[in-house]
Parts: sequence; C-alpha cells; structure tokens
Amino acid sequence: MTTFAHPDLTAPLFASAPDAQFEPAPADGVLPEHFFSTTNLPTYVKVGGRWRMPREPRMDSVLVLDTQGELWVREGRRVRRGEGVAVGHAEDGTLGIYVHAQAFLGSTGDGEFKFMTSEVSREKPIDYALMAKILLEERDRGGYPVWVTGPALVHSRARADMTWFLTNGFVGALLAGNAVAVHDIEASVYGTTLGMTGAGEATSGGHGLHMRAINRVRAAGSIANAVEQGIITDGIMFACVKHSVPFVLTGSIRDDGPLPDVVTDAIAAQDAMKEHTVKATMAILIATALHAIATGNMLPAFVTERDGSLRELATICVDSSEFVVSKLKDRGTHQAFGVVTNAQDFMHILRLYVEREISARTAGAPNAAMAASR
Amino acid sequence: MTTFAHPDLTAPLFASAPDAQFEPAPADGVLPEHFFSTTNLPTYVKVGGRWRMPREPRMDSVLVLDTQGELWVREGRRVRRGEGVAVGHAEDGTLGIYVHAQAFLGSTGDGEFKFMTSEVSREKPIDYALMAKILLEERDRGGYPVWVTGPALVHSRARADMTWFLTNGFVGALLAGNAVAVHDIEASVYGTTLGMTGAGEATSGGHGLHMRAINRVRAAGSIANAVEQGIITDGIMFACVKHSVPFVLTGSIRDDGPLPDVVTDAIAAQDAMKEHTVKATMAILIATALHAIATGNMLPAFVTERDGSLRELATICVDSSEFVVSKLKDRGTHQAFGVVTNAQDFMHILRLYVEREISARTAGAPNAAMAASR
Amino acid sequence: MTTFAHPDLTAPLFASAPDAQFEPAPADGVLPEHFFSTTNLPTYVKVGGRWRMPREPRMDSVLVLDTQGELWVREGRRVRRGEGVAVGHAEDGTLGIYVHAQAFLGSTGDGEFKFMTSEVSREKPIDYALMAKILLEERDRGGYPVWVTGPALVHSRARADMTWFLTNGFVGALLAGNAVAVHDIEASVYGTTLGMTGAGEATSGGHGLHMRAINRVRAAGSIANAVEQGIITDGIMFACVKHSVPFVLTGSIRDDGPLPDVVTDAIAAQDAMKEHTVKATMAILIATALHAIATGNMLPAFVTERDGSLRELATICVDSSEFVVSKLKDRGTHQAFGVVTNAQDFMHILRLYVEREISARTAGAPNAAMAASR
Amino acid sequence: MTTFAHPDLTAPLFASAPDAQFEPAPADGVLPEHFFSTTNLPTYVKVGGRWRMPREPRMDSVLVLDTQGELWVREGRRVRRGEGVAVGHAEDGTLGIYVHAQAFLGSTGDGEFKFMTSEVSREKPIDYALMAKILLEERDRGGYPVWVTGPALVHSRARADMTWFLTNGFVGALLAGNAVAVHDIEASVYGTTLGMTGAGEATSGGHGLHMRAINRVRAAGSIANAVEQGIITDGIMFACVKHSVPFVLTGSIRDDGPLPDVVTDAIAAQDAMKEHTVKATMAILIATALHAIATGNMLPAFVTERDGSLRELATICVDSSEFVVSKLKDRGTHQAFGVVTNAQDFMHILRLYVEREISARTAGAPNAAMAASR
Repeated sequence: MTTFAHPDLTAPLFASAPDAQFEPAPADGVLPEHFFSTTNLPTYVKVGGRWRMPREPRMDSVLVLDTQGELWVREGRRVRRGEGVAVGHAEDGTLGIYVHAQAFLGSTGDGEFKFMTSEVSREKPIDYALMAKILLEERDRGGYPVWVTGPALVHSRARADMTWFLTNGFVGALLAGNAVAVHDIEASVYGTTLGMTGAGEATSGGHGLHMRAINRVRAAGSIANAVEQGIITDGIMFACVKHSVPFVLTGSIRDDGPLPDVVTDAIAAQDAMKEHTVKATMAILIATALHAIATGNMLPAFVTERDGSLRELATICVDSSEFVVSKLKDRGTHQAFGVVTNAQDFMHILRLYVEREISARTAGAPNAAMAASR
Repeated sequence: MTTFAHPDLTAPLFASAPDAQFEPAPADGVLPEHFFSTTNLPTYVKVGGRWRMPREPRMDSVLVLDTQGELWVREGRRVRRGEGVAVGHAEDGTLGIYVHAQAFLGSTGDGEFKFMTSEVSREKPIDYALMAKILLEERDRGGYPVWVTGPALVHSRARADMTWFLTNGFVGALLAGNAVAVHDIEASVYGTTLGMTGAGEATSGGHGLHMRAINRVRAAGSIANAVEQGIITDGIMFACVKHSVPFVLTGSIRDDGPLPDVVTDAIAAQDAMKEHTVKATMAILIATALHAIATGNMLPAFVTERDGSLRELATICVDSSEFVVSKLKDRGTHQAFGVVTNAQDFMHILRLYVEREISARTAGAPNAAMAASR
Repeated sequence: MTTFAHPDLTAPLFASAPDAQFEPAPADGVLPEHFFSTTNLPTYVKVGGRWRMPREPRMDSVLVLDTQGELWVREGRRVRRGEGVAVGHAEDGTLGIYVHAQAFLGSTGDGEFKFMTSEVSREKPIDYALMAKILLEERDRGGYPVWVTGPALVHSRARADMTWFLTNGFVGALLAGNAVAVHDIEASVYGTTLGMTGAGEATSGGHGLHMRAINRVRAAGSIANAVEQGIITDGIMFACVKHSVPFVLTGSIRDDGPLPDVVTDAIAAQDAMKEHTVKATMAILIATALHAIATGNMLPAFVTERDGSLRELATICVDSSEFVVSKLKDRGTHQAFGVVTNAQDFMHILRLYVEREISARTAGAPNAAMAASR
Repeated sequence: MTTFAHPDLTAPLFASAPDAQFEPAPADGVLPEHFFSTTNLPTYVKVGGRWRMPREPRMDSVLVLDTQGELWVREGRRVRRGEGVAVGHAEDGTLGIYVHAQAFLGSTGDGEFKFMTSEVSREKPIDYALMAKILLEERDRGGYPVWVTGPALVHSRARADMTWFLTNGFVGALLAGNAVAVHDIEASVYGTTLGMTGAGEATSGGHGLHMRAINRVRAAGSIANAVEQGIITDGIMFACVKHSVPFVLTGSIRDDGPLPDVVTDAIAAQDAMKEHTVKATMAILIATALHAIATGNMLPAFVTERDGSLRELATICVDSSEFVVSKLKDRGTHQAFGVVTNAQDFMHILRLYVEREISARTAGAPNAAMAASR
C-alpha cells in the first residue's frame, strides 16, 4: 500500500505564504469569478496563518469556509449565496493553497493534475493539416516516406485514395502483405473484396473470387506481367507498377496463393523490408498490427540529415483501436503518433487536406494548411 | 456436441446429377479457369456415378483426382501441371459437387458459405454518398432527423461540422447530455475542451476551465441567456439557439455543474426526449452508448408515412468500436446500421458528401451522389 | 429506403382472431400480471373487431386503451390505476395482437423480436463447465485438440496453466509463433517477458533480455538441445519437449532471432501446420489473430468420425475483443465459438474447471460439471 | 518537426570513457555472451578514441565493427563467426557506448529505452494475489470498500460471486444503476437476464421478462419489500437486503421501469453516492464507464488515516477494453489501476484467491498469498 508524507509545512514557501483569499458567492450555485477549482489530491489551505486540509475532498469543486470556520470541499451547485469561496488559480502555495501533486503524479506524469494526459485516445483531435504539411515537405525535399498497410485499407474502399498517393509522388515504398495485393487485384478484376461488394454485401459464390484473382496472376507469372497483359487495370498494385513505386509483399501463414511476388521466407522478407526502412524519412502505418510492429522493429526513431543533424522520424500509426498503437509503443517505437480511426476515413481526409494544401500553395496562400483546417 | 446427418444421397437431385468434371492444371501451381473453390463444409463429389467425400477438407483450395483415383482437397500452389482439378461453380450438386451448407449454416445464416457476413465490422465500407442522399431527402420532405451525440464529438473537433449541420437545416432535434454542452461552451469561451487544446495538448491549469464555463452559464441563468449576453459566441449550442433547433440535455451522475438547461430527473428527461423521438423520421447516433441506447429504447423501428405506408426508420450508429452498435442491436434496435469510425472523421466526410451533393444538384447533375463517391 | 407492406389483415388468421383483452391496472405505475410487453415493430391490435395500430410505438411498454377509445403505447410508469392494459404474451395474432416481425427481422434473424441475439459479445456468459467437459471427452476418446496461441498467453502469466494442460495430456499439438517460445524461454531463463517482471514492471536493461534468451538457444542449436543442456528448465516449451507434444513455430516478419526451430518460410510453415490440422478433432485459439485465422483457413468445420458420421469440429476462439472472433467468422470459420476475455483469466478458470471435473469423476459424482459450475 | 541536438561529446563523461569492447562471434548467427543489445535511438560508440554513430540503426540488434573499420548495427542472425560484436550492457557511455535516450524519452518516460511501458494494457499480468490481500486487509481494519458495478456483471453470471463478496463482509456499499438490480431480480424470478438464459441463448418471449420483474417489484413497493414477500429469493439485491449492505441505485435515461428504489434525479443521486464515497477506503469499479467515472469524480485520490497519515486510495477499474480505464484516468482519477478482462472472469478468480487466502490464514501459513499465486 503506497503511503505519502505530508509536505513540510514549516518550509519557507509555506511559512511565507499569505492566507488563502475567500470571496462571497454572488448567488445560490454561482461562484465568484476566480474560484479555485479543486483536484482529488491532498490540498492544504492557509487560514488564519495555519495550513489546514479541507473536509470531503474531491475534484471539480470549490473550497468553502463556513461560518463555524470549518473548511469544506463543496460542489458549486451546493454553494449558497454569500458563502466564502476560495479564489486564485495557483496550486503551488503562493496564494495560500497548495496541491500535493508532485508526490502523487511525479513518477508517471509531470507532477501536475491534468485531464486528458493519456498518449493514445480516440478522444484526441487528429491534426490532418499538420500531417498534410509533413507529407508535402517530404515530397519537396525528396524524402522517402514508407507506407505500411493492412488489407482493411482495400476492404474499406480507401483503395482509390491510396492509389492517388502512389500516383502523386507521396510514397517512397509500399510494404504490405499478400492480402493487400490480393484484395486490390480482386477489386480490379471482379469488383469485390473477399466477395463483398463495394456496398458491403456478401455475394453468392463470392468466396472463391480472391482465389480466382490469385490464379490469374500466378498464370501471368507476376503482378507486373498481369498489369502488362491487361489483367489488372487499376488500383494500388497497378499504380505501383505504372509509377515504379517499389513494393515489398511479405508472406505470412494466413496467405492464400500466394501471389508470385510474395517473399515467403520471413527472414528474406525482413531483409527486403529493411532495404527501404534504412532509407525511410517518414513512416505511415495503417491498419496492420503485424506489419506495423515489424516495421517499427527495424526503424530508427530518428533521421540523420545530410548535414549530420538529427530529427525525429515522423511515425504515424492509424488503427481502429488504441491497442495497436500502444502495442507498437510497448515494443519500443515510442515516437509513434497514434491516430485512432477507420482507415478508409483517414485516407479520405488526409488526401483532401493534401489536395487543399496543394491548391492553396498554387494560389500562393501563405498559411494554407491553417486555412484548410477551417 | 452437435452432430449432422449426411444428405440423403439417394434423393433424385443426387441420383440424377452428372459426374463432376475435372480439367488438367495448365502449369504447376496454376489452375484451370473455372476451378471449384472449396469451403470448410462437408463436400460430396460424384465420381464414376458414386458420391464421395474428398480427403483433407479445407477452404480456399481445389478438388484434385489423383492417378490412383483418390480424391483430395489441395491448395492450388501444390497442384502439379496436368493433374485433374474439378471445375464448375455450383455448390448445389447440379454439376456433381454438393456442399452440405444448409445443415451447418441454416440456423444462423442463409445457408450458404460466404465471407464477410458479420453485421457490424470496421472492415465494411461506409457509404457516405448514400447517407448524404438520405439526409438531403429528409430535409426536402420536411422530415425530423434526431441527432444524438456524445462528448467525443466536441472533444475531437467535429464541432465545426456539427454546427454546419445545425445551421443548414439537417437537424430536427439534438439530444445530448450535459457534457456535450459543457465542452462546446468551454471551447467557445476558452478554446479548450477539458483543458485540452485543439492540438490535443493538456494545458496547465486547464482542469478547471470546464467548471468556469459552467459557472458563467449558471450566472447567466440559461444557455440562451448566455448566447444573448455574448458569453457563448459560436459552436453547437450557439447554433441551436440562433437557429431555433430544439435540444434536450439530459442529466447523468457524471455531470459537473450541471448547466441550468439540463433535465436532471431521468424520468422527466425520458419524457422530454420522447417528445422528439415520436416525431423522428431518422436517427443519427454518434459516439455515445448511453444516449444511443436510451434513444433506441424509445424509437420505433419504422415510420408511418402520411398515406399510412410503412418504411424503415433509418438509424445510423457511429462509434469507434463494434461493441456499442452490437449492444444497441442486442437491446432491440435491430434496424441500426453501424459505422465503425472516429466521430470527428465521420462528421467531416459526411458534411463533405452533403456539400458535394448540394453542389451537384445545383449544377443539375443527374447522378450526383454517384459522382461524389468517385 | 426500405419499405414494408402491411400484413394482409383480411387473411383467415386475422379475421378469426378474437379481440385483444384489456385488464385494469391495479395501481398507478403497476401493471396487470400478464401485460403484453411491446416491441419497436409495427403492431396491430384487434379492438371492436377491427385491427388498429397504436400511437407512439416503442419497445418495453404496454398497450393502453383510453376512455376515448384511443389506443396508445405507454410506459408502465405512466399508466394510471384502472386504465385498460392489454394482456397476453402471444405476438402472432391469435390473442388479438400481431407483431409484424417477420417482415423486419426475417432476413437476418429468426423473425422474432429478441434481445441479446448477437453472436459474439463480452456480455454473453462463458460456459467453462461445458468446455472442461469437452476437453476431458477429447482426452478420453484419444482426440487431437490443436491449441493455437499468441504471446499474450505468456506475457500475462497464463504460462503455468498452459504448461499444466501440456503436461496432463490435453494438447494434441501446439501451433504458435516465434514470440510465444521466445517469451516463454525468457521467462524460464531470466524471469521476465520482454523485460517486464511478473508484477508488470518494465525493468532497467530489460529490453535486451529476450535477445539474450534467443542467443542462448541459437548457441544450443535447438529448443530440445537447450532443454537437454539445462538452459530451459520450465514452462511451455520445456513441457512440449519433456512430454513429446509436437509443436510448430511458424515465422513472421516480426520475429527477433528467430529461434532455430522456427519454420521461416510461410508456405513450408503452412504445410507443417496442416500436418496437425488434418488430424484435429478440436481447436482452441487463444489471443492471436494471425495464427487463429491461419488455422481457421486450414480447418474443416467438421470431424468425420471413424464410423463415417459427422460432428461439428468444436472451435473455441478467445480474445480480448469481439473483433478477432468476428474476423475469424468473416473469413469463413463460422463454427467458431467466441469467448471475449483476457487470455490469462481464461486459462486459469478453464484449468480450474477441468481439475474440478477430474476430482468429481474420481469421487464418482454423476453430474460433476454441473456441480463444478455451482 | 522535432529536432534534437547531439550530446556534447567533449564533456568529461565522454572524454574519459574507454573504447567500446568488441568480442568475436562464436559461430554464425550466435553472439558473445554479453553483447550490447541496440535500441532505435541515436547511439554513439567510442572506437579508437573517437565517438562514432553506427550505420543502419535499429533496435534488437548488435554493434559490429567490420574488417574495414566500418561500424554497423546488424541483426544477430546476420553476424558471421569471428566478427567483432560490441559487449557490455551499459547505455550511459561508461563502457564506450552511449544511447541518447534522455533527449527522446525524457519528456514522457523516465529517459530510458524500455518495452512494455504503457500504463494500461491487456498484456499486463493481473495480480489477483495482491488484490485479495488488500481486500482482506480492508475487511480486517474495518475499511469501507465501495463497489461500483455495471450490468455486465449480472449478465455474465458473476452474480454468484458478487453475492459471495456481499455475504462475506467485503462490501462497504454498492453503487450501481437500475439495470444491475433489474437483471439480478429477473435472474432470481425468471432465471434469465434480458431474456437470455444462463447458457447465453435468447429465449422466445424473453424480451418482456425484465419488464415483468420490474412490475412485480413496483407492485411490492420496494426491493426490500419484494425480498420480504419472497418475490426475490437470491442474488445481489437479496444479499444487500439480508446483510444490510447499503446500496444506491442511480437513475439514467436508459432505465426501464424504474425500480422503486432508484434515485431518478441525477443531483440527488450524486448526493446519495457521495455519502459513501466520502467514507471510501478502497474502490472497485467493474464493467461500467458511466458509474466508474461518476464515482471517480467524487473520490479523493487518497485516504487520511485516523492518525492523520496519507495513503493512496486503492482504486481498481475492471473493463474489457483499455479505453474505459484510460478515460477514467483522463478524467483525473490517475490512481486507478486497470485490469483489462471480462467481468465474470475477474470476479471468479478474485473470489478464488480470497478464499485461498482465507484458508491459508486459517491454516496458519505465513506466505499465504504467495502460495496462492503458485
């Protein structure tokens, strides 16, 4: 059971502090403007030259000194007109109120009581304008952004958006598994993914379509051949071939087929991936735990610029749940910035922001990304 | 332990069926064009007038008749050139191959082996074009779409988009809790939500800001008063007041404050909500389990049109996880259509599609929604 | 927009039905014993020989005929003493009340309004007594249960329980990845997993310990050699070697090392796994999406008994989230039964129930599993 | 874009450090015993008196000095026999290798590269022995553990275990919502929860059973009356009444009924809850976001002992997903310890450990909890 020492209330800080100030509540359930808002931590209040702890401590409430001289923590709604409510925002004792935060929060946080401190949460805003700006800067400086994607990207119709990024020079290399290519090619050849239509309906006989797509590429000998022969006519793999974006398809035990381009040996596959991770200046990991963590394992947390200076290797990890991002960090990729959303929606909005930024630049607007973010 | 009877292979269907057809594989690991793709269910193949079951059954593979007359299920990659591979897509026995699906899948599915049959999944595509079209139709016909939202909507900066829908006539009524209004008003007054900036950073001293926002509205007496007095100058509640969109803020035990407009009694709150649900012609439930299920409890699954005809009451439920949607269905709101994504992204793309659809209509395009969906 | 036809109220069923019965409420907010509990579906009530639809439809409420002859759906709490409340449980019209369920629920459900119909949910009870019984039956009949596990099993200290199952004859074969063996061996050699102690604390310098564990096994040449040389002295891999339980460790791109026993080629690995899946009479998939779906791909949905009869191949899938189980089903393993819980807790309770069942059998109790479930 | 300065390599620490030591690899792919295991952070190695950065940085690898004097980060499997591999575990430069961790990890972590540092994860072990010990100590010292539970507890058959804790003196007060009591009473009266049997099957006509249970208690006037009249004969509410454990049932907009004991006004409900939270010496929050966060809001992070000393108020939060625990912390309840598992399983194992601990104490075993944890 963790115990805590009280602060040393004889220390100069405490001895020299003034009494806390109290102002009368202007109406029932209404507080004076600069009321002190409580935390759930041990709190010490100087009254009549003496440091005291209030009764019934809780957060999101105020300090009330009642007419008997008793000191309470009380919800604002329960304060009656005229009651004395402590004012002042300082929590460090300088205004007569001290929150014993360092003792409780010093080991894991920054020693201050705050809300919303978790690193990865669906409740955090997603700064698409910033990500769009980074992507454009990478393209401008000839960077090498490595994209690592799972099949949800294709399933969920972000396929057109991924193709757009490939076509427009934002992808240094694409790292994925057999399934991404299989579903993408199934979509090109049959218009379905795992037999599901673009509207999300399972189709009769659809369960065999990905196998038929694989078979046609196996017959052609490679994805590039299948593009050349007109079997694959659009989509992600088509764009890779047409725009000479290098891709690595790594094998796994879940693979059907696999496609002829797949590197089935895990060690050889790691070597093939590493040819790209050593050049990476940015990493975008979308909807895949396996490939994201594998890439994270190989990726330095930093980029050494040509002039020898260091910068963080921007690493964005997109997933529907907080778990994958936390797991990536738990495996050492601490620099990963988590975006908790659906892959389809992420791709669509990111593209939109990049397009807006490009338009704004063309139009000469100086603060384009800001404007785009409305 | 569930057991299954074999099909009655003496029935006319089976007796009259032809032998299964086999074609030679054109190359090692390459299959004849119309290969039969296996399932994991009991499968019966007619060979030499006799129905047999193949060895080593599994899905995503093919039926191979070896030179000894043995029948195998084999992965395509393991098939050697010239081996006989069963062809034909029919699974009903008419071409000599029968999949015993009804016995296994009849009780829960439609008795056919399919992929991607779960009702709610992040892997399903999201049809924004269709949702935009429904919203516009509702507005055109004077429908009454009820929006039910949780605080994640405000936290995550979808606030501007929600305001847009309120301002542009897409909201019949807004049902929410104290927190939605508190965070929205905190954003208007202080630029933060729970002390977190728009960039997702926790701020020093920020933990008290939502309490200060509440206090200012309590001093004003109501949200409408606070708008009138210039305390609240933008956002969701501002738009409700300015555009006379009715709102119900229902109380919960988590509430700070609460704001003066909150109906704190759960029974009175249900009555206040029901005034709107009885008029609802559509429901959009975003990022809230509590309010979504509460609304689902009150909502009929159907709308009775003025002419007495019935249609489904379109019910969209948006959440980061499949769980909330499944729970809503498990509580009887079977008509709910689940969208598994981040609330911020959902709002942004939905608005985009609605704006596109409006532009397209103005431009007179006949297939606007289609065009918008690219 | 889906529309629905009304039922044909001239059909004999409706014509011959009696009027619905109404009984007076015994007190304010209290209903007559056999009140009809409403659904959210279109409902038709025969009053005075005529079928009518009530106003303000919603679920979990009752049908009230007011003194003006108006028919309402009303919450029980709003019913006043003496008001007429419809009674009878039948929803098929035979007692004068008809719920139009088939039209709404026929395509996806069984055409009846029910709660808790989702297939996979953390809210469903977990029948450990039944699973324990199946495991013991498999052992008794010489079955071949295939266990497929992810590293969470080792991380989270279910290691001792997994070892117990291996030692006591409940495992036909173990299919896993490099990480399971690495963490298990790290635990044996250093007492940590990924540098985390059994109490969940990250240790200083701990990030290298799994690499050191791997290095020692690589030096020994194989896991079996490392056991023989006394490097590995307890745990899962130790039990496999000592009790001759076959295991397959399949490679992935996330692998550190890998250990010498790992089959790094994905195709060879599938072949190695399939040697066991073709013999499987039961499958237990724990805390792994990759290996569970890979195994599901290979697994028939049924077992053919020696006498030629068919039974379902019991397939249990354990994961912290509904998503993995739904994904497994969406890839065709429809027979999977989902258990949504933590792997550590699952293993601990399952073992407990198996031990209880064994004790009960030894003691000659006839309904052992029942007794064990309390 | 975050940039980082190199460390000052002219500082005494670096100037006085020895050269890094290299030892030859004993075999292909096998490393010398005390190899230095790399991180993904900038790393500086002293070779020939000069600090250098290796090429191709990544984690989980080793430092190799090749025959040309080039310094590489290389995967252990790629090291050839006889190549020079850096040895020594120190990352602080004292042995000639410096990891620039503070710059990268100082702001969020403790400035050291570690795995498994996230606070809440399903991959962390759950220390039931410790929790059992705390519960027993609380009982021994006359503490006041407040239990806060969601309906999943009842749905999922942890009902018997919760009843056991109530009956055996481990519960100071029970805080819950209407649903917990409704499902518990439905289980007592009809044997189902929301119409679902104990085996997880939805029953025909089951959707009305919770309404019938509510109606019977409303007729009786209160839960206590219903117990007295023999309507409720077992379970959680029965145990509360029989063992005089105080309970607060707070209303929400989701409530059916509600039961007569429910405090429907959210403000009155908060006051009723607070009567117990001010006395709390421990809090156990199970499977409820709403009630857990509401309680967290009211709860101090500490207990003031009778002698004036402070200790942390042990707060355990159990949920199926990391999200609820993170949200609780994000709302300021930083002391919460998260257990990511299924409520049913948590209750079952916790009870088991408490029972074992009691038996061990009775038997006089000194290290009972240790023994219980095996």
